Amino acid sequence: MNEPHKLTATEAAAAIRSGDLSSETLVRACLERIAAREAEVGAWIHLDESIAFAQARALDEALAAGETPGPLHGVPVGIKDIYDTADMPTQLGSPLYQGRQPDRDSGVVELLKQAGAVILGKTVTTEFALNHPGKTRNPQDLTRTPGGSSSGSAAAVADDMVPLSVGSQTVGSMIRPGSFCGAFAYKPTFGSITRRGMKLLCRRLDHVGVYARAVEDLALVGDAIMINDTQDDDMLAHPGHNLVAGLEKLDQYSPKRLAFVRSPVWDQADEDAKRAYEEYARGLGDIIGELDLPPEFDRALEDHHVILNSHLAAVFRREYEETPGQLSDKLKARIALGIPLAASVLVEATDRADERRRMLDRLFADYDAVLTPAAPGEAPADLTTTGNAAFNAIWTQCGVPAVSVPLLEGANGMPLGVQVVAPRSRDANALAVSRWLWRMKKSDG
Amino acid sequence: MNEPHKLTATEAAAAIRSGDLSSETLVRACLERIAAREAEVGAWIHLDESIAFAQARALDEALAAGETPGPLHGVPVGIKDIYDTADMPTQLGSPLYQGRQPDRDSGVVELLKQAGAVILGKTVTTEFALNHPGKTRNPQDLTRTPGGSSSGSAAAVADDMVPLSVGSQTVGSMIRPGSFCGAFAYKPTFGSITRRGMKLLCRRLDHVGVYARAVEDLALVGDAIMINDTQDDDMLAHPGHNLVAGLEKLDQYSPKRLAFVRSPVWDQADEDAKRAYEEYARGLGDIIGELDLPPEFDRALEDHHVILNSHLAAVFRREYEETPGQLSDKLKARIALGIPLAASVLVEATDRADERRRMLDRLFADYDAVLTPAAPGEAPADLTTTGNAAFNAIWTQCGVPAVSVPLLEGANGMPLGVQVVAPRSRDANALAVSRWLWRMKKSDG
Repeated sequence: MNEPHKLTATEAAAAIRSGDLSSETLVRACLERIAAREAEVGAWIHLDESIAFAQARALDEALAAGETPGPLHGVPVGIKDIYDTADMPTQLGSPLYQGRQPDRDSGVVELLKQAGAVILGKTVTTEFALNHPGKTRNPQDLTRTPGGSSSGSAAAVADDMVPLSVGSQTVGSMIRPGSFCGAFAYKPTFGSITRRGMKLLCRRLDHVGVYARAVEDLALVGDAIMINDTQDDDMLAHPGHNLVAGLEKLDQYSPKRLAFVRSPVWDQADEDAKRAYEEYARGLGDIIGELDLPPEFDRALEDHHVILNSHLAAVFRREYEETPGQLSDKLKARIALGIPLAASVLVEATDRADERRRMLDRLFADYDAVLTPAAPGEAPADLTTTGNAAFNAIWTQCGVPAVSVPLLEGANGMPLGVQVVAPRSRDANALAVSRWLWRMKKSDG
Repeated sequence: MNEPHKLTATEAAAAIRSGDLSSETLVRACLERIAAREAEVGAWIHLDESIAFAQARALDEALAAGETPGPLHGVPVGIKDIYDTADMPTQLGSPLYQGRQPDRDSGVVELLKQAGAVILGKTVTTEFALNHPGKTRNPQDLTRTPGGSSSGSAAAVADDMVPLSVGSQTVGSMIRPGSFCGAFAYKPTFGSITRRGMKLLCRRLDHVGVYARAVEDLALVGDAIMINDTQDDDMLAHPGHNLVAGLEKLDQYSPKRLAFVRSPVWDQADEDAKRAYEEYARGLGDIIGELDLPPEFDRALEDHHVILNSHLAAVFRREYEETPGQLSDKLKARIALGIPLAASVLVEATDRADERRRMLDRLFADYDAVLTPAAPGEAPADLTTTGNAAFNAIWTQCGVPAVSVPLLEGANGMPLGVQVVAPRSRDANALAVSRWLWRMKKSDG
């Protein structure tokens, strides 16, 4: 088999199940791709070939011995370094956690292992999954940011180093890097994936998400990890969305009615990106209409930062007071914004966010999905920033499922994602619309 | 039938179903009891005999016409005046809302009507269900407070004016008045009953609860109103606890292991109440052990007030600034405590409260139920206070089901409730233990 590291997770899992490919061969191909590219891309913070090969060989042997394979049997996955791993350090992108070795796997890593995945290594996160960048560069153009905070997870998948990876999103940390690097990024409905053993910044906003190179792969890994965990208080009672079955059922589906949403931060988009998004929406013809969000959404971004910064002032209170030299200036600036905020201001911002979530449920009822920019433009040619998350805050705050589909190109030929958003718990719809758009692009191209 | 207003709701519903009693007769008996006592007790803020009779007659006619009766068919219920009613004013115990007429029933009133209940009238609440008392007196001793904030709901049921009533609890507003007045009070697991159309003080802490004169009645009304409402974001996915069936199944049940919890506020109890509770626990013999809450619970009450006061500063910001003369001094003092609190302090208090909730799930795993004081003593002989809610905050904060059972008497012959607490969603257990304790008292007496 030629270049197995370029297979999608769905293809790789099928080839392993059928005996056409071994997990060991696949892992070796991924590690060779990483060896060739890592010095430039810098997607990984911890790689342990021996642990990866040991997992792969054990899975190959289990299959040979007749064991029923899990849905991800033998497929390697990269894990953002904010999720605890019992056999690899978890350092949170911070010097304060250098060399830290958890004694237990996080919930999502446990579920991936149960599904048969190989945990290939830990991917670079920005400092505490916030704004201060790590070493990762954009694999499409090494002078550009990969976005953040899930920098390594997005870059590794986009660069064919691994077919799947796990990231997280509190503002725009999944969708924006997906758009910048040209990977499929999926932030599910709030409460779909356990956050146990992940560094929590803000219970109200933190989501687990996944990267892949095909919509089907998002469904495959999603089904494997959307399982209830009583140790995450915010999980849905029924977090599974039957994504693989949903996509199969919707194989011939085409959406009846889509909406194009510019959103209140439209002015923050680059001119060429605005043109590209508007042209794309126009090209979809009669099935798409324009939806203007009501004025209650105008303050969504501001409220988002009130909620997040309040939590950062609490979560990092001790570090800010005792070891400020170990925190980045960007993080300290956010904490400094959070400290003077009044509790009643946080309550009001949270109440408005909750009200927006209810409003969106009603606004979306008429549409199969909503299309909106995944990012304000191409990845900036600046490695000191991770770019602007303004186009992601509303959808994170409202807990709706969002997918970044690498459908467009910017003026410099860099990828530009279209963000597909569906009502809460209609994750299968978000994926079905994403696949439909992707197939159209392929048949056009 | 003699004195139908003294029937329990379960007895009354059965008599109505069998044709031995009409709803009209029952409503008339309740109104006569109210007419005889209301001048002294002051449990009601709005009573409309014509609306009550119209409902009762319509229900009697429906039954005569062969309609299948609901579980509360023809049974009158009193509604705390913080729940919206479309045909009666809802005034929240505040001059700011004098004469306010909502145009839609609250969720709980809708569900009660669907179950066949007669909405008899609105009961007195303290100002905004907080600390400033209304006109209600304790029916057992008119010089004493009925407790609050569900003052009228507790007094009306204890005084045989109505067999059932709805109240609410944010700190101790159900359990404490139940103890003071000698009614059965039930605050279910957090998220069991919709709060749509109720004046929300604090999403994290507000609970709907019910009063009755028998444990079976708490189950009867509980089953009727524990139904999902997508408009209350905090509802459990499966809010029903099958209480009537659970009690029937557990009819011969006796608990294997109970715990007596003094809790960190034990010092706030009166000496005679301490003696009465300790003696009662000792009298239960070998099945009860002592459980000390770990030190993480020491700050529970303080955190509770941080959370609540932060929310009050937000909820009443406009009234505090624009119409302070219309707010009681007690409410203004709470708001004044809430205003200077920092957002990060609220985040930390909420995180600790959430952690206590998880801890309690583990601590309670070994017990059928936990017994603890419902109040620090008898109702104070002071109508300017509603008493001390210190013994209720932990259980409210942790969202566990709690029942006040009028098992004891204080030194002055006033009722003293034993609070029966069970793990979250084990509401049927809390009721079964309450019934078991009540039956023991009856067989002793």
